[in-house]
Amino acid sequence: MRLAERIDLANAEAARRLTASRARWVDVRPLRDVVLDLGAYELTHGGPPLLWREMGGAQRGAVLAAVLYEGWARTPAEARGMLDRAEVSLRPNHHAGGVGTGAGVGSPTMPVCVLEERGVADRQGTLSWAPLAPAGIDAGAHDAATLARRRRWREALAPALGRAVAARGGLDVDAVVARALHMGDDLVHRTDASTALAVAALAPALTAAGLDGDALRELVDGLTEGEGFFGALALAAAKLACDGAQVEDSTVVTAMSRNGVRCGVRLAGTGERWFTAPAPTVKGRLRDGYDDADAGRDHGDSALAEAAGLGAFALAGAPALHALLGTRTADGLRVTRDMAEVTVARHPRYTLPALEFAGAPVGIDARRVLDTGILPVIGATIEHREAGHRPIGAGLTRFPRECFTAAIEHFADARGVR
Amino acid sequence: MRLAERIDLANAEAARRLTASRARWVDVRPLRDVVLDLGAYELTHGGPPLLWREMGGAQRGAVLAAVLYEGWARTPAEARGMLDRAEVSLRPNHHAGGVGTGAGVGSPTMPVCVLEERGVADRQGTLSWAPLAPAGIDAGAHDAATLARRRRWREALAPALGRAVAARGGLDVDAVVARALHMGDDLVHRTDASTALAVAALAPALTAAGLDGDALRELVDGLTEGEGFFGALALAAAKLACDGAQVEDSTVVTAMSRNGVRCGVRLAGTGERWFTAPAPTVKGRLRDGYDDADAGRDHGDSALAEAAGLGAFALAGAPALHALLGTRTADGLRVTRDMAEVTVARHPRYTLPALEFAGAPVGIDARRVLDTGILPVIGATIEHREAGHRPIGAGLTRFPRECFTAAIEHFADARGVR
Repeated sequence: MRLAERIDLANAEAARRLTASRARWVDVRPLRDVVLDLGAYELTHGGPPLLWREMGGAQRGAVLAAVLYEGWARTPAEARGMLDRAEVSLRPNHHAGGVGTGAGVGSPTMPVCVLEERGVADRQGTLSWAPLAPAGIDAGAHDAATLARRRRWREALAPALGRAVAARGGLDVDAVVARALHMGDDLVHRTDASTALAVAALAPALTAAGLDGDALRELVDGLTEGEGFFGALALAAAKLACDGAQVEDSTVVTAMSRNGVRCGVRLAGTGERWFTAPAPTVKGRLRDGYDDADAGRDHGDSALAEAAGLGAFALAGAPALHALLGTRTADGLRVTRDMAEVTVARHPRYTLPALEFAGAPVGIDARRVLDTGILPVIGATIEHREAGHRPIGAGLTRFPRECFTAAIEHFADARGVR
Repeated sequence: MRLAERIDLANAEAARRLTASRARWVDVRPLRDVVLDLGAYELTHGGPPLLWREMGGAQRGAVLAAVLYEGWARTPAEARGMLDRAEVSLRPNHHAGGVGTGAGVGSPTMPVCVLEERGVADRQGTLSWAPLAPAGIDAGAHDAATLARRRRWREALAPALGRAVAARGGLDVDAVVARALHMGDDLVHRTDASTALAVAALAPALTAAGLDGDALRELVDGLTEGEGFFGALALAAAKLACDGAQVEDSTVVTAMSRNGVRCGVRLAGTGERWFTAPAPTVKGRLRDGYDDADAGRDHGDSALAEAAGLGAFALAGAPALHALLGTRTADGLRVTRDMAEVTVARHPRYTLPALEFAGAPVGIDARRVLDTGILPVIGATIEHREAGHRPIGAGLTRFPRECFTAAIEHFADARGVR
């Protein structure tokens, strides 16, 4: 069989595995309980590997805050010293079986949502995770009030949430994602529907959380009042789906991520290697008082959602999001339609009513990206290039061509073709 | 001032009052606690006034079931006898300050959601109501299991829900409606988003309901698993909005309703009089095994939602609904655009992302309906013409021209013009 045919078959199988994945939220645990080989002084971060000294502002801030939250240092200067001396090690979330929203920094005692594979036959019980991201906690902040809030979640609220999730017997994340796509969520930048559905589903089990009325309100407010805690669950579900799609000879993208410096992709047929290029800066809608020159390079694991058919790939279903992105309804329809040109399947359960219930395009074929010149669109939060700012805006951007070129060159070389 | 100008000013004021309404859900009570002059053997029903002997199948079934539920008769034959001898009196919900979803039958001990006006200055504290419609209770069924479920709600679950609502300090129905319009609800036939938002908002207060874990799950399942209990709240909110829009000389529609035989409208400037015409039969998407000949005439109070800018008037925002109605995305956009031709305002808070955040068209001007020939579109559940069936389908229909002609003729006569 010619290589092109082998690739077609492998891509179909990768897409089949990707869309067969069904994630269930089963627990909330400290990260070190889930990543068993996590070092005592190790942090995880969004994006492909990078060094502390390379990090951009937003990620730098989140790493510093994590060192202080863990109590490894008492002052930012001390924390910086530890990092400068490499006394704290850093590992991509992706290399530890998880993903993170925003800067995506994880630390040993940070509560993470734990998801379990229930769909792909040979991966039953495989776990993924993403840090719980409640409202009112800015990942880059390390003032006393923020650190106290984070510790309150660690000590009381997150364990209580874990008890409620367990008491309910878990939550079918895949089913919530499918419903929320009919309710205006893209599952990355808009999670109003999925968050409400999840909290409503958990409501009867909250009595099992063992909290009094005020603490219960604090817990639910933390889940519902922020950017939407469900984004972490959707992203962790995408991690399970993409990790399960490793198929020899497939050119389907199984990871896309950015670390504030570089962005990188992985393919189903090229294993754990990242193919990177400089991360773009995103043009979009900025908050008042900021301009394009303030923007740092794109960062975060959220682009994995696009690889799983969510985020910008499902933008046709999320018209309310245009107010945030500075785009229009027609843009959303066009992006979803364009992405069908570079994907190998339509998701059988993730359907889009605005496109007469067509499935979300899923399974990016790196070959088609190069052949068509249509680069994958991703939604992106725009971060300030310096530490200490909240996100300054949001917009759409495209994953750079160089990543796909490098990946396909390597893929071809490994198979003795040019 | 010429009459036409007086009408224009009056209509602007009616629309201002309509859209100034902000309903808050404050309690769950037995109907007789809210309608203080309700007779000991009196039922309420959807639509304009009609007699027991006129009623179509679905409403007949719901009235019989209510007589049995109240324990006024032990058998359907006994219940029929009481109704035939007029020992049970009937009153439109609209004449008792309320509305009902589906057949819309209310009875003295039936739990109703109670809403309070918080927006229109001169109507602060005015109440409206709609019967709580939990999942698993078919209004027309009177088998022992259904009656037991209804009594379980009356004795235990509805009072508990009332305690939770009170413990929370009520729920801002207007705010939920506005958010749900960005999440694919039309608030009549699709209430997935509003239901989830409401249950999530109530979640922390559910501990105040005084139920154990199993009963709490029963309560929440009853709210979330059916057609969506929030439809009753949205409709009761529309009742407050429309009742508050009474303005002398206004031709704005303040009620549209159908009773399975006739449909009728009221105008802001014509008081409590109904202007009726035969109710249409609805063509739409039917469940397997049924055809158009099975359909009864349109019934129910839900068309009031359209008068308040919801339902089919907001169809552009509810693309997932087309699977139910047998229509397409483009139909939804067109219906909402067409309805702007016969309305006097855009709702300032009920915006539609798919139309670049334009407000929902609100305040139907009966003059414009006649001038343009564009009849108001409403969404409708299709009921079987005989009692004892669940709804057999759903579709769109139009309110008949005769109602508007009769209303405008009366309006003109009363003002000495022709």
